[in-house]
Amino acid sequence: MYSLPKTVNLLIEELSQFPGIGQKTAYRLAFYILKSQKKNILVLSEILKDVKNKIKHCLICHGITELEPCIICSDIKRNDKILCIVEDAQDIFVFEKTNSFNGKYHVLGGALSPLDGIGPDDLNIKSLLERITSGMEIIIATNSSVEGETTSLYLNKILSNSIDAKITRLARGLPVGGDLEYIDEATLIRAMEERTSI
Amino acid sequence: MYSLPKTVNLLIEELSQFPGIGQKTAYRLAFYILKSQKKNILVLSEILKDVKNKIKHCLICHGITELEPCIICSDIKRNDKILCIVEDAQDIFVFEKTNSFNGKYHVLGGALSPLDGIGPDDLNIKSLLERITSGMEIIIATNSSVEGETTSLYLNKILSNSIDAKITRLARGLPVGGDLEYIDEATLIRAMEERTSI
Repeated sequence: MYSLPKTVNLLIEELSQFPGIGQKTAYRLAFYILKSQKKNILVLSEILKDVKNKIKHCLICHGITELEPCIICSDIKRNDKILCIVEDAQDIFVFEKTNSFNGKYHVLGGALSPLDGIGPDDLNIKSLLERITSGMEIIIATNSSVEGETTSLYLNKILSNSIDAKITRLARGLPVGGDLEYIDEATLIRAMEERTSI
Repeated sequence: MYSLPKTVNLLIEELSQFPGIGQKTAYRLAFYILKSQKKNILVLSEILKDVKNKIKHCLICHGITELEPCIICSDIKRNDKILCIVEDAQDIFVFEKTNSFNGKYHVLGGALSPLDGIGPDDLNIKSLLERITSGMEIIIATNSSVEGETTSLYLNKILSNSIDAKITRLARGLPVGGDLEYIDEATLIRAMEERTSI
């Protein structure tokens, strides 16, 4: 069988490594790239290089940034006494989009997962312990997955032992606008257990 | 609101230009790129540059190639007397995958579409007329869309006027393995009209 030019094959191979992009989509994207203006693709090529060369992790919160420290950590208008702990750097932007949190963040860089061999030493916990001071409120905002919950329990344990801080976590319950008919059972049980008075 | 680092925003913007990639997917891909090993992303960056610098259109068939002429046009084992006319360069690989066609190809570079302002002069028709010789079989393998059918009719008209060649086109009918229940009406009508004796 006649095969595609070598460079095109390499491109398809690289593109199909991306999450959610299979062989067929990679193929379609490769032909889109072939048809696109040379100028645009060279710009993309440069941006990819820039992203890897310019973007680093903030030394304080471990979020992504071009500057050091990042603009959240260096923002004096933000409340130093509220710290929101998230699993990944992109979680910061999920909160920032809501425009309703004025504290600072700390990125763990993952969640505890013994099955995948991820233990406390693999997460940014040492630097977290260095940041917290007594009187702070620490919001544990890990995902609602098994790994996220495990990490949350672990953090609660070591934090409550080491410092006098208020430790909270995100509420579990019905999503806003959610129809009872379509809510999964686990969420419904949690919503019932954690019901609040009105 | 706090925004993402500039380079990351640029990357998301570029990625969301691709077909089938919306803002959310672009965002997810950008964070995947941030997490990936620098080495791998620099390789991708180089491949993108290579693809635009090395890949050209074959002067004979207008397919994509690194060499000139392409390996199909320069293959002496292939039958010069059968020419398969396709709309796009990637259609060649669709046929090649079947391993059942041993002729040569000609890429039109699109299909006639008056609404989009694409007329005969925008397609590789002049070079097609230069390639055909009498006694050839010409298979018109344009898509089964309105534009593809229009192009097919147009090509049939000018080719049958200009040269003594056998002009055929791909059969229309039920896809192999297709269940009658799920076939659209237009295809069914075609399959009925073009029924063959067994």
